Parts: sequence; C-alpha cells; structure tokens
Amino acid sequence: MAPDPETANYGFNHTMIRVKDPKVSLKFYEEVLGMELLSEVKFDSFTLYFLAFDKSGGKLTAKEKAESRFSREGVLELTHNHGTESDPTFKGYASGNEEPGKGFGHIAITVPDVEKACERFEKFGVNFKKRPSDGKMRDIAFILDPDGYWIEIVPRSIPNLGK
Amino acid sequence: MAPDPETANYGFNHTMIRVKDPKVSLKFYEEVLGMELLSEVKFDSFTLYFLAFDKSGGKLTAKEKAESRFSREGVLELTHNHGTESDPTFKGYASGNEEPGKGFGHIAITVPDVEKACERFEKFGVNFKKRPSDGKMRDIAFILDPDGYWIEIVPRSIPNLGK
Repeated sequence: MAPDPETANYGFNHTMIRVKDPKVSLKFYEEVLGMELLSEVKFDSFTLYFLAFDKSGGKLTAKEKAESRFSREGVLELTHNHGTESDPTFKGYASGNEEPGKGFGHIAITVPDVEKACERFEKFGVNFKKRPSDGKMRDIAFILDPDGYWIEIVPRSIPNLGK
Repeated sequence: MAPDPETANYGFNHTMIRVKDPKVSLKFYEEVLGMELLSEVKFDSFTLYFLAFDKSGGKLTAKEKAESRFSREGVLELTHNHGTESDPTFKGYASGNEEPGKGFGHIAITVPDVEKACERFEKFGVNFKKRPSDGKMRDIAFILDPDGYWIEIVPRSIPNLGK
C-alpha cells in the first residue's frame, strides 16, 4: 500500500537497549563494530549514548554528527542506569530471546564480507551465538554484545532468501 | 575514536521484534506509521516481514526496495511465529521495559512535527504511553505498537538535550 503522504518525512531513527557497563559496551560498539559516538546525554540517574556508522564518508563534523542523532536513520541508543556496572546484585539484562522476556530479537549489522568480518571478530574475542559454518544458514552469523544481546551479521544481499 | 578502516562499509541494517499477529502489526506499521513492506520471507514455522520508510523519494522500484533490505539502514524486521495469532494460551511478548525481561527499550520514529503526528495517531486510536503533554519532556511522545512495544516519537532535533 502507498504510505499516507502525511508520513512522508517520517524515519526509523533509533533502537534503544539498556547496558550494564557503558565502558565495556562503548568499547565493543566503537572498536569492534566501528560505530561512532554521536552524542552523550547525562541525567541524574542515567546516561544515554547515541551511536551510528558514519555514512557521510567522513564529511560530517562532530557537531553535525551530534545534531544528526534524531534526524538520521541507523542510530543505536545505549541507556546506562548508573550503578549497574558495580552492583553485585544486578542480574543483567534480558536478551529478549528466552522466556521470560521473549519479544525483541536482535539488531543486525550489514557487512561487505561476513566471513572476513567474523575472522576479525574472533581476533577481538567476541562471543558467537552462531558462526557462519553453524547450522543451515551459511550466509549469516550471530554474535553477542557484552550484555548478551544478539547481533546478526548479514551480507548486502542473500539472493535465495525471500521473494 | 576513529573507526577501524576495516569497518568502513558496515551499517546498522535492522532491528527484529516478534509480533503476535502480522495482519494487525503490518496494518499498524504501514497505515499508521507509513512504513513500506520491502519483502516477506516465509519459512515452515515462521514468516519474516521487512519494513522501512522510503527514503528515495519514490524513486525505487518494488524490486529495488526488496533488494535493499540488507544493504540499507532503518529496516524493521517483524518475526511471526505461526499460530500465535489464534492461540488462546499465548501470553504475548515482553516489551522489554518491565521485569522480568527488562533489556530492550524501544524503537524511535523521527517526525517533522511531534504534536501533529500525535494528533494523527489519536485519530487511528493508537495507545499512548506518554503524550507530549505528559511529564517533563514535552518534545517527545511514546506510543505503543499492537504488541505493546514502546515507540518513541521524536522531532528532528531537541536543542536542549545533550552536548
């Protein structure tokens, strides 16, 4: 169906997940995945971190990147509730893939070469849920972020998947 | 930090959430939010629906849109496990915002005018978690999708939020 013209300038801006320790998560999303921190917003009891891949070919300034956090697509928001990183009673967050708490499934990162990307992830000691060689779907992989959220690694196209 | 050049062509492709009834969810994401169905992939026990906002100004053909589902950003993947829509014992999915199952928070849609968008949502009978007039943050709203997932409605910029 054709979208209502009133929604013409809507966009899917971001996805928010809670993280236990922002130092660990930022290192993972920046160093391992190559995302950039667009902006950081600190409140009394929590801090928000907005990350995204640079799609400008390095043309945007840091200020422009920060300003883009609500206007562009493909932004990941990490919410850190202060204290979880050092609270021994904190049990961690649900990945969304097990009961109780099933609902959200994963985020997915497109890469030019899944095999090559996975070899690189291995060097960083990233935990895998599914290597390309596991199971039937050899085109994709699933890695785990520091909180255990699933991250699908997908190629630019999977010719035999879907109409 | 500057991203590793090896990640230069990585992208945040999609976010996956499970839905109880795809007819209800597709109507919501297409009609109310204005997303378009890029492709649909049916397996024996589940079906995947890939949705996104058209960012090409109507220039892409249906085939090109379908092919873009792993290469572009801002894609939403809905997973329907067959049968949940008519199973009286199915308890629904966790939004990720209550215990047990806290982790994932929300997805966010950028709109040109939050007040105007919310007036439109009211006409569709959309459930609100937070209207712009509720609470302190008057710039944003939170609506609920048919499964109860939170969707933040954000303007293109919030000048006073963040460094």
